[in-house]
Amino acid sequence: IGLPLHQIQHCAGNFFGRQKNTNIRVSLPAVCFVWQIAMIILFGVFIRYNEESDVRKWIEFKHSHNITSDIENDFYFRYPSFQDVHVMIFVGFGFLMTFLKRYSFSGVGFNFLIAAFGLQWALLMQGWFHSLDPNTGKIYIGVENLINADFCVAGSLIAYGALLGKVSPVQLMVVTLFGVTLFAVEEYIILDLLHCRDAGGSMVIHAFGGYYGLAISWVLYRPNLHQSKRLNGSVYHSDVFAMIGTLFLWMFWPSFNSAITAHGDGQHRAVINTYLALASSVLTAVAISSMSQKRGKLDMVHIQNATLAGGVAMGTAAEFMITPYGSLIVGFCCGIISTFGYVFVTPFLEKYFKIQDTCGIHNLHAVPGMLGGFVGAIVAAAASVEVYGREGLIETFAFEGDFATRSVLTQGGYQAAGTCVAITFGLVGGALVGFILKFPIWGDPADDNCYDDEVYWEVPEDEETIPPVLEYNNHMIHKHQDM
Amino acid sequence: IGLPLHQIQHCAGNFFGRQKNTNIRVSLPAVCFVWQIAMIILFGVFIRYNEESDVRKWIEFKHSHNITSDIENDFYFRYPSFQDVHVMIFVGFGFLMTFLKRYSFSGVGFNFLIAAFGLQWALLMQGWFHSLDPNTGKIYIGVENLINADFCVAGSLIAYGALLGKVSPVQLMVVTLFGVTLFAVEEYIILDLLHCRDAGGSMVIHAFGGYYGLAISWVLYRPNLHQSKRLNGSVYHSDVFAMIGTLFLWMFWPSFNSAITAHGDGQHRAVINTYLALASSVLTAVAISSMSQKRGKLDMVHIQNATLAGGVAMGTAAEFMITPYGSLIVGFCCGIISTFGYVFVTPFLEKYFKIQDTCGIHNLHAVPGMLGGFVGAIVAAAASVEVYGREGLIETFAFEGDFATRSVLTQGGYQAAGTCVAITFGLVGGALVGFILKFPIWGDPADDNCYDDEVYWEVPEDEETIPPVLEYNNHMIHKHQDM
Amino acid sequence: IGLPLHQIQHCAGNFFGRQKNTNIRVSLPAVCFVWQIAMIILFGVFIRYNEESDVRKWIEFKHSHNITSDIENDFYFRYPSFQDVHVMIFVGFGFLMTFLKRYSFSGVGFNFLIAAFGLQWALLMQGWFHSLDPNTGKIYIGVENLINADFCVAGSLIAYGALLGKVSPVQLMVVTLFGVTLFAVEEYIILDLLHCRDAGGSMVIHAFGGYYGLAISWVLYRPNLHQSKRLNGSVYHSDVFAMIGTLFLWMFWPSFNSAITAHGDGQHRAVINTYLALASSVLTAVAISSMSQKRGKLDMVHIQNATLAGGVAMGTAAEFMITPYGSLIVGFCCGIISTFGYVFVTPFLEKYFKIQDTCGIHNLHAVPGMLGGFVGAIVAAAASVEVYGREGLIETFAFEGDFATRSVLTQGGYQAAGTCVAITFGLVGGALVGFILKFPIWGDPADDNCYDDEVYWEVPEDEETIPPVLEYNNHMIHKHQDM
Repeated sequence: IGLPLHQIQHCAGNFFGRQKNTNIRVSLPAVCFVWQIAMIILFGVFIRYNEESDVRKWIEFKHSHNITSDIENDFYFRYPSFQDVHVMIFVGFGFLMTFLKRYSFSGVGFNFLIAAFGLQWALLMQGWFHSLDPNTGKIYIGVENLINADFCVAGSLIAYGALLGKVSPVQLMVVTLFGVTLFAVEEYIILDLLHCRDAGGSMVIHAFGGYYGLAISWVLYRPNLHQSKRLNGSVYHSDVFAMIGTLFLWMFWPSFNSAITAHGDGQHRAVINTYLALASSVLTAVAISSMSQKRGKLDMVHIQNATLAGGVAMGTAAEFMITPYGSLIVGFCCGIISTFGYVFVTPFLEKYFKIQDTCGIHNLHAVPGMLGGFVGAIVAAAASVEVYGREGLIETFAFEGDFATRSVLTQGGYQAAGTCVAITFGLVGGALVGFILKFPIWGDPADDNCYDDEVYWEVPEDEETIPPVLEYNNHMIHKHQDM
Repeated sequence: IGLPLHQIQHCAGNFFGRQKNTNIRVSLPAVCFVWQIAMIILFGVFIRYNEESDVRKWIEFKHSHNITSDIENDFYFRYPSFQDVHVMIFVGFGFLMTFLKRYSFSGVGFNFLIAAFGLQWALLMQGWFHSLDPNTGKIYIGVENLINADFCVAGSLIAYGALLGKVSPVQLMVVTLFGVTLFAVEEYIILDLLHCRDAGGSMVIHAFGGYYGLAISWVLYRPNLHQSKRLNGSVYHSDVFAMIGTLFLWMFWPSFNSAITAHGDGQHRAVINTYLALASSVLTAVAISSMSQKRGKLDMVHIQNATLAGGVAMGTAAEFMITPYGSLIVGFCCGIISTFGYVFVTPFLEKYFKIQDTCGIHNLHAVPGMLGGFVGAIVAAAASVEVYGREGLIETFAFEGDFATRSVLTQGGYQAAGTCVAITFGLVGGALVGFILKFPIWGDPADDNCYDDEVYWEVPEDEETIPPVLEYNNHMIHKHQDM
Repeated sequence: IGLPLHQIQHCAGNFFGRQKNTNIRVSLPAVCFVWQIAMIILFGVFIRYNEESDVRKWIEFKHSHNITSDIENDFYFRYPSFQDVHVMIFVGFGFLMTFLKRYSFSGVGFNFLIAAFGLQWALLMQGWFHSLDPNTGKIYIGVENLINADFCVAGSLIAYGALLGKVSPVQLMVVTLFGVTLFAVEEYIILDLLHCRDAGGSMVIHAFGGYYGLAISWVLYRPNLHQSKRLNGSVYHSDVFAMIGTLFLWMFWPSFNSAITAHGDGQHRAVINTYLALASSVLTAVAISSMSQKRGKLDMVHIQNATLAGGVAMGTAAEFMITPYGSLIVGFCCGIISTFGYVFVTPFLEKYFKIQDTCGIHNLHAVPGMLGGFVGAIVAAAASVEVYGREGLIETFAFEGDFATRSVLTQGGYQAAGTCVAITFGLVGGALVGFILKFPIWGDPADDNCYDDEVYWEVPEDEETIPPVLEYNNHMIHKHQDM
């Protein structure tokens, strides 16, 4: 009767079924060591500096291209954006996932782990598909590769959002290994074979990552997850921590969508469009959030997430001439759709589709990413020589080489097809990875033990035990005893 | 005796007077939707990409100006500074206002909302006054316009600091609508008509925003605000959150003051001057804070705010040749003045002038901004050909066109006059807006209900109810005893 | 029984020895004012704008060097990196030290104070040693000087990590005054006399700063520090705050190591190398952390610190052609060594060497810094014309002037010697400063009063007294009334 709760849970676990083993003392170090050593070997074989980061080659490059100033090095065009993207990946995604009351360590910590692994694997996978030199068999990297590696990792971090609280770090490493691999393949198909444009990754990052996570979550459905319900919610300060993530994502999203667009007007325009779409989705997210609650009270979940939908939806079209008011319209619609998703669709998906989506990535990434893909298709199809100029049209859509004769209408069709490819890869790949994760060897938590840092972290004693507080209560008690 | 406190408050509210209606379920969504739709329409009519963000125009621009490299696009001169300013607006101002124990959601959340609205309105208002093309009737925007929009919003965010905890989000939208409008007008008068220089906005941003907020607060004076006294203070972790705001403001202030100064030496010098003034004001703020408390203990309010005074005060003079030690002196004095303000002037203003200034914007923005305006006037008046060179003098003070013959002494006089214009606009505009906000339709909280997120937010259950906290276990145990 | 704990502590303090006087109401303001005034005077005598931040000189410089575009101003090469470094110094170091349950104000606040002082003193000290113009007797500063000043301050902030919780702010000002002075001298010896390369400061910043702090801590050994044991640990949310520091350090370390490297390929390559080393050390830190705990649970201390070891260790070699897989190997090893240090070496040092190292700077800075110095020596010694090109070798190692004939092998030897100089300066300088700090005039806390913000800060009443908690107290009261 006086048994502590966790002992009761143990009993229940033993009674109703297999007690889950969450000991990862062998599996986690093994995965980290083996995979990191593999990275070192593969980097040794394949990865070299490119002509802008190699001292000898850069000197030769400057001579041969008649460049007089180091400022022409791509580093100066892209490094500020890269750093913003880097902040989004580690602080943005990481802190956005600290909102649960007792899962902040895992939210920010596992995000850190899998991103640090994933970006190495991404440099290799993307390198093999996009920048392998056929003569030397080497991949030559520079700052643009680092940005693309961060982008590639984002797909898996989005998937983590759906799984938050229900998987072990070893499972997350597996999710990332396959996520990065699938990403590199779908990206190759969409960008190279279909020749789509997708600088901010509405399709290749958000739609793919969103459906990848949802499919995994669908396979890993836990019918008894309500046993952990007490921990599936926020406390006051965890919601404030999550706002750090939200704001750094929101502020730096213009850098995300412009990081690898064309030098000059391309980066400039992508920033303006994203900035406007984001501003617009804040207002509509607030409006729908207020409408959906009694007395018009706002819900932190909506503010933390749906305000970002405009950035997701501009991932493809940001570099196009979508016009400033076009950007506002996209943000306007996606702020509404995303908030509606949190209010109605997430509960619906859980009840009828058996998809448990902790962070609501369906509403923030999957749907806005898909819409962003189609917005890009429409804007591409509507492009005209009048607006872009002939040279500008070629530059914006890379109508060169094999694609020199492609029309904008055809381009629009391929953009739409690319969106479908991304979704398909996410759904099929996620289902496969989900089945791999069902093997009972990964150390995932029991149904009554989810959303709890205690499982994988040494959690400090509670704040309650700080002396001043005990004293205060004692003091109160004594005072009343004295009376 | 067993009644929860909030029930007692309800009773008291009903007994002593009209119970305020804080239901914003109609008004907030209405304002957000209508104004956002208005933005879309106005952007559709007026806003276009400028020649550096439009693909066709940039190609033509490069041809016509004989530019060979995209690095000459203004984007690469200003984008890193823009991103820093953006962080100041959303994380800096937002987190600085999380210091109250139960108003962190509103501090960071409403700041997010009104900044996202205000920057759209600012692009229009500033566009009409500064960059409307008379031939086409269009406003052409680029990264510099985005920076200016962020600047313009800062004025209203400063005003929010004085009102924190006492107004509804609908009122804040009104404050921002009028704040941005007034800003654009005073900015036009000061920068265009009086031809003042004010790159970091000591006058147009800080003095204006500070007095604007104080005037509103004066009109909205609440004699019974002491009924909410229990919530008008910080807790340990809310003070740490506020330090995030302080530090991002402090670190990025050099970018703020240099974001729109002249390319090359102008941006370079503004950074150095601001960096030094800020460092200096940290030391004097700490000194005065320690002197003002028994046993020399420091007060977090001073560290969070007065350390920034040097940046505010360098807003005008940062781009001038004020010399490094001149910058240190400005920071030195303003750190002292600002901290004294927190210790003595804020209580004095509340008691004798009926101005309730939650964040002490009087000490951080109004007074240092005003001083910054006068410092700018003095430094301008003292400018000489010997120090600036003839070409440099023309470049720094834009002595061109109608102003080609203006002397530095005259310029100094106009700078001082500009400061007075900013203050006047703030005071008169703020008083008017204050009266508008007194209409009983805006959903503001009752006097005993201020500084409380509960009024406008779904606040999560308290940390006390997390399982490790014994009660939950007790509860489980009792349940089992009952069985 | 009813005595509050702090009264018992008072009694104990009086009984067992001298009660420490922690009143700093005179000493702290005096130090701040006098030193800040000294800075103003010295800046007035010595510091001027350089030719890239002075309006007159920049115009002349452009003419004389035939520069047509302001983008050639060093500002545009270095300012984005500078801002990242600035964030590391104030948010990175500051928040990393908020991990203690009741020392977050001091962690972030004193870091702020001493960095703001130190950077001014660093501009002077480094200026006298490195950029004093012999003709004019002036120091001319630009953005590179600001970066170097931030770097110089980092040495003292590292030392603060060892002392955290045990010293007064006045003592920290002394630590910084001498720390910056020693830094400037050792830097002059290492970079100028020995002609070492150390762009990211493995030697001059981390090894020096680490051993400087450890030596001070050794002199200030407190045998009765266990009396403050109750406060020497984290709580849940303080660990999350510390992750803000960790992540901003981790993300921006590529900027740190590349901030002052050569334009073009130099900055580009340093970023790639540091990015990879950091990613690698995350995986091995996680692996060792998991292995060292029962059930494989991760320890936040390791994640917060050891993940950064790769960045420290790449401080010297980042600008060399260490190759991408070389960077991964360095990060791999240092992640292991650093985590082992936290598990085994820190307790060992405290027990047998009487060194109390609060943040474990031995494992994060001293040892990885030293290793980084030797890695740099090896990579330098292995440099070849084949890899660097003749011109590249001269550029990378500055084999010019007096050093035009130096071989790479000799260079490697000098690099190793430089590391030893840095360690020696740290140990000897730290011991001397430690003895100065032992004078009983600095207001340091008693052994039973360490790690407590109450000593130097006005700490707000506890969260417990927020209204909802009144209910909780009512509950307690009723419970006792029932008895």
